[in-house]
Amino acid sequence: MTRRAGIVGLGLIGGSVGMALRERGWHVVGADPSDAACEAALELGAVDEIGDAAQAEITFVATPASAVVAAATAILERGSGLVTDVASVKTRIAEALDHPRFIAGHPMAGSEHSGVTGARADLFHGAVWVLTPGPSADDTNYAAVRAVVASLGADVVAVDPQAHDRLVAVVSHVPHLAAVTLMELANHRSTEHRALLRLAAGGFRDMTRVAAGDPGIWPDICAENAPAITDVLDELIENLSTVRDTVAKKDTATLLGMLERARIARVNLPTGVPADVALAELRVPIADQPGELSSITRLATDIDVNIYDIEIAHSAEGKGGVVILIVPEATGERLVGALMANQYHPSIRPMGQL
Amino acid sequence: MTRRAGIVGLGLIGGSVGMALRERGWHVVGADPSDAACEAALELGAVDEIGDAAQAEITFVATPASAVVAAATAILERGSGLVTDVASVKTRIAEALDHPRFIAGHPMAGSEHSGVTGARADLFHGAVWVLTPGPSADDTNYAAVRAVVASLGADVVAVDPQAHDRLVAVVSHVPHLAAVTLMELANHRSTEHRALLRLAAGGFRDMTRVAAGDPGIWPDICAENAPAITDVLDELIENLSTVRDTVAKKDTATLLGMLERARIARVNLPTGVPADVALAELRVPIADQPGELSSITRLATDIDVNIYDIEIAHSAEGKGGVVILIVPEATGERLVGALMANQYHPSIRPMGQL
Repeated sequence: MTRRAGIVGLGLIGGSVGMALRERGWHVVGADPSDAACEAALELGAVDEIGDAAQAEITFVATPASAVVAAATAILERGSGLVTDVASVKTRIAEALDHPRFIAGHPMAGSEHSGVTGARADLFHGAVWVLTPGPSADDTNYAAVRAVVASLGADVVAVDPQAHDRLVAVVSHVPHLAAVTLMELANHRSTEHRALLRLAAGGFRDMTRVAAGDPGIWPDICAENAPAITDVLDELIENLSTVRDTVAKKDTATLLGMLERARIARVNLPTGVPADVALAELRVPIADQPGELSSITRLATDIDVNIYDIEIAHSAEGKGGVVILIVPEATGERLVGALMANQYHPSIRPMGQL
Repeated sequence: MTRRAGIVGLGLIGGSVGMALRERGWHVVGADPSDAACEAALELGAVDEIGDAAQAEITFVATPASAVVAAATAILERGSGLVTDVASVKTRIAEALDHPRFIAGHPMAGSEHSGVTGARADLFHGAVWVLTPGPSADDTNYAAVRAVVASLGADVVAVDPQAHDRLVAVVSHVPHLAAVTLMELANHRSTEHRALLRLAAGGFRDMTRVAAGDPGIWPDICAENAPAITDVLDELIENLSTVRDTVAKKDTATLLGMLERARIARVNLPTGVPADVALAELRVPIADQPGELSSITRLATDIDVNIYDIEIAHSAEGKGGVVILIVPEATGERLVGALMANQYHPSIRPMGQL
């Protein structure tokens, strides 16, 4: 018998869930207040039909966060199936919807503000998908939602809603606000000498990159997760004050200890790179013209070197740059040799395991 | 007649200056307390000879910052030539060496802590090279140093030493300390649940990347530039407190204004990209296997699309990723077409001018 799923909200996430479920043989019924989104979802194969999925075994509420409680409540009251959501802040939703058949969730992939045209069946392959079951959630229901989500290729992590919100405040919300604050500070301090921002090198660009993004969902996230965000901001402010006093005292031993601990923590951040692969960083000066990257990465492919990460550090005035490649250390020297044979002048540095 | 230059300190910067000068016909005499560095510099062609450049028209003091004043004083007392340095904090050095023949400087390229083996003649091509002449600096001498530095391909910016130190505190020193503090905070908050750091996505990785670097020179920089750093940290702390209160009040209008101002400032950061080129961002989902990047960038080369920036956003568990490409907007759709013809599924977003 064909399993039936419902999707409410046909954006990037909703559409991708639909595609992934259909690929696995489900019959998917979708709904969205936008007729254009419904038409696009049908056309792209994200849903089998548009309508009210009263018979659904599971319904994914993939609306903006502010609409989740109303949409999920309506489904829970009418049907008998499981309900989950995909909002990026969980405490309020989990509290408002403490129900045996509701299992709140947050796939760490894409953004609910991109449209269905960006949807793809493999969006959740290897992505972390957090589930935050509430106290009334039935164990069998939780296991069933978990199994469906895992079947989409996601790496399922279960935490309570408060822990989720505290952690995304730490690794996403507060860093975003810090980037915005740093960018504003630099902008304000250089009002009289805009050109001096040419002194902003790669580190500053990396740190403020997220500030260039669409403000979009951030005010809502900040409002929704205000308690956790203010708590983390309080700690950040306190820690920065300690750093400030350490710098003022020129206490270089304490500073070195702090820098060393942060270095170890950063290189141990879990990543997509297999934990047992030692990596090396290559820096390859290039001219700023079409074909350089292609030539370098083609060379890597030709000699079977997998590139885990790549970025271009441009010089400030655009007359050249440096390509930074992260590759398995075991293959680093092979790539150095091939690059030198092709008139590049790479340098290499072992990075250990990330 | 051959022009003669001296280099004291044969690391990455000193060696690169030597190579660049020799390429332009100078005779370069180098010195370094390390015999190994002297031998390597000779072998790599960074200097013509090792010794005391008493007859030098200009001497570059490229020692660690703490050794600059003693080394430069010795040269100023003995010789008649110009003297400059490359230390990354300037106020103390400029005050201690207020002399008609000393013009302090700071090339924004590489790091004084990498060795001569990384040196290259084109290190300063297009790099910003700050000069911070003191009140006693002779105008003719300043112009002469400026001409030599510019001849190496550098983009010379002159500011007073205090302005330099304040600005690098804003765009380099404080952001570095903020990254370290954020990383420590996240590490501390996840002590019980290390695996939860899997929720740290690309933005957090970008923001904390510099924290993975060698602590090396940072304690000295912090000690040397303590007044400017503490001043900027005070402002950062004050601004973060304002952000905290805005979040606590759920004042979404103020937050949106702040995010919007930061976005505009960030996209207007001066970069190597010509100012009049509108750009587009392409996101291309890829499998995590050798050859994908090569295939994508080769495709771009084949159809004459210049890639200004590229990075890979890996999914947290390494089973796939997204290549993010920045290209001129005028050529973006051409690349989208070529990618789709090759079974990729790119999305495109106009970015305006950077």
